[in-house]
Amino acid sequence: MSWPNNRLTQLLGIDYPLIQAPMAGGVTTPELVAAVSNAGGLGSLGAGYMKPEAIRQAIAAIRQRTDRPFAVNLFVSEPVKEEAQRVIAANRLLAPYREALNLPEPEPLLSAVADDSEEFTVSLEDSSEMLVSTGANYHEQVAVVLEEGIDRVSFTFGIPSDAEIATFKQRGVITIGTATHVLEGIVLEETGIDVVVAQGMEAGGHRGTFIGRPEQGLLSLMTLIPILVDQLRIPVVAAGGIMDGRGIAAAHHLGASGVQMGTAFLTTPESGAHSMYKQALLDTTEMSTVLTKVFSGKLARGLQNRFITELSEVQDQLPGYPIQNALTRDIRRAAAEHDMPELMSLWAGTGCALCQSRPVAELMRQWLDQAAQYLKP
Amino acid sequence: MSWPNNRLTQLLGIDYPLIQAPMAGGVTTPELVAAVSNAGGLGSLGAGYMKPEAIRQAIAAIRQRTDRPFAVNLFVSEPVKEEAQRVIAANRLLAPYREALNLPEPEPLLSAVADDSEEFTVSLEDSSEMLVSTGANYHEQVAVVLEEGIDRVSFTFGIPSDAEIATFKQRGVITIGTATHVLEGIVLEETGIDVVVAQGMEAGGHRGTFIGRPEQGLLSLMTLIPILVDQLRIPVVAAGGIMDGRGIAAAHHLGASGVQMGTAFLTTPESGAHSMYKQALLDTTEMSTVLTKVFSGKLARGLQNRFITELSEVQDQLPGYPIQNALTRDIRRAAAEHDMPELMSLWAGTGCALCQSRPVAELMRQWLDQAAQYLKP
Repeated sequence: MSWPNNRLTQLLGIDYPLIQAPMAGGVTTPELVAAVSNAGGLGSLGAGYMKPEAIRQAIAAIRQRTDRPFAVNLFVSEPVKEEAQRVIAANRLLAPYREALNLPEPEPLLSAVADDSEEFTVSLEDSSEMLVSTGANYHEQVAVVLEEGIDRVSFTFGIPSDAEIATFKQRGVITIGTATHVLEGIVLEETGIDVVVAQGMEAGGHRGTFIGRPEQGLLSLMTLIPILVDQLRIPVVAAGGIMDGRGIAAAHHLGASGVQMGTAFLTTPESGAHSMYKQALLDTTEMSTVLTKVFSGKLARGLQNRFITELSEVQDQLPGYPIQNALTRDIRRAAAEHDMPELMSLWAGTGCALCQSRPVAELMRQWLDQAAQYLKP
Repeated sequence: MSWPNNRLTQLLGIDYPLIQAPMAGGVTTPELVAAVSNAGGLGSLGAGYMKPEAIRQAIAAIRQRTDRPFAVNLFVSEPVKEEAQRVIAANRLLAPYREALNLPEPEPLLSAVADDSEEFTVSLEDSSEMLVSTGANYHEQVAVVLEEGIDRVSFTFGIPSDAEIATFKQRGVITIGTATHVLEGIVLEETGIDVVVAQGMEAGGHRGTFIGRPEQGLLSLMTLIPILVDQLRIPVVAAGGIMDGRGIAAAHHLGASGVQMGTAFLTTPESGAHSMYKQALLDTTEMSTVLTKVFSGKLARGLQNRFITELSEVQDQLPGYPIQNALTRDIRRAAAEHDMPELMSLWAGTGCALCQSRPVAELMRQWLDQAAQYLKP
């Protein structure tokens, strides 16, 4: 329980047990990642959606800005199948938004998906079912991360294969997994993962659940952390709703070895979040977030907006992740270009009402000073 | 932030800022309430469902066992209306359970409700609508509490009238309200309530939401406490998911002046919970609780069982609280008599996997010692 030096800071080679959450989709700029690492935490590149070459460039840009440790986050992905009929129906539901944004109507079935080869490839098995292969990009991402000598890698949505884990261990890479309930934590530990990030129901963005249904794994940090640390030997990091030194101190007393904070970094000048996204976070109240599948087909927490409200009733008819994510990509991109936050995915944790628009170094100093008042050195 | 003496302990006249949650339905025996108060916390009699005379007797029994402060909790209630058709339909859905328990089929409309005059009275306005008056019993309850010289009163489901608040203040009664989001906290403070219990989504039993829909007020303590204490001047008490000294310390660092713990007391020998209910809690895992309206018509958290599973799909068609609560009462009582936990309401918070079967004094000593390790005196 000693603060700030504990087995997590020692393992990760950082000054403070604070990880910047690997938010994908352009938020984790090299500036943000480097600023967090330079301030003594662990910055994280959210590389889940990035092409291998873009990951290589981002790593170089981060290394120009810091010589301290940082992590790269990848989405563990497996081939999925989807009914063609669901994709056709989803495109029909999305047509009014494309029309409003002057976007071309996609081919009835595949073009909107196949358009984005960086994320996955699609093949039509027969007239009713499509096979989506997401593995290729993920394995290329892993290869780049290893080639670049990255030595802290975090994973979401699953567990790397035994062979990959063995390779990471051989290269001295510290691996960080994500759990939303105890069984996932136990499985991660038994697989040889070094650190478990425990994602409370408070967390913004996608639920990391990979065993069971995400709707059932909605435990808050107050429950998840004590129960998880009683079961695991490896360090547990608390993620979700932590917005300042009060949350950091609380998480440590619940038994966490550290915290992972995402939403609290979104409104910093270093973050790559869209200016309208930042403004929406600064204008928000404590009741603003909801869990939704409408943007990606996977349950995620974000600010309620028009797109969520209008599609929430049909969300169980939509294709699963990552197909729905690909289907809505042109809409989300065009909405961002036209400054229309009502059609963007504004991922946010339940604590977003405490967002501040200040530089990373200032914020981290404030949080860590506040936590230090409570925590025994 | 000083521990354990702060403005809450001073206001309530207790040694430790720990309130035993006022669980209604027979759990808060005089033995439980007195044991908590004798150990330096604030015991609470959950009197919401009790007839005025039963409250008087329970108060006397508590006073035989302790001379320390304790609270009485009441449900603020207002007349409600319900469609007769919904009641008829609900009784049809409940018929298989009554049959399995050899319970008589109630009159198609009212008998199952009117049977329980202690809770409310029912009058048929016309053939399609019934009026349920719940005020009478509540006002009698308040009268008894005042006659008995009770000086700490907590309220759930709403706010006492201005006249009642004025009377309480005149008599030196300290009032405790329940909030599930910031607006409710602000309204309670402005009404003149002395202490706000902030009920996180982790809490077992009924949601205390009285402004907006309970489903929307599902904030965890990690979010609710910091945001609420930033807005209020009166002491805020954290309730929900706190099961030991780790949770107590965490709640204090989030800014709470104290904690309210319910589920953690359910499995003590002093608690009046049914033996099968206690055993179910001791056997549970961290994924066991769900939010449901099937027992009472009001959203509440409890252990998933057969009754919840079978009726969850139709729960939005059921009558509201307190009518559905009255309709299921004979079933819940008979299920308890026959040791059938699958048809009982097994209210529990998300932390129930940490329940221990130990006497109150031992548990409180353990929790407070653990919290003291973390909290600065």
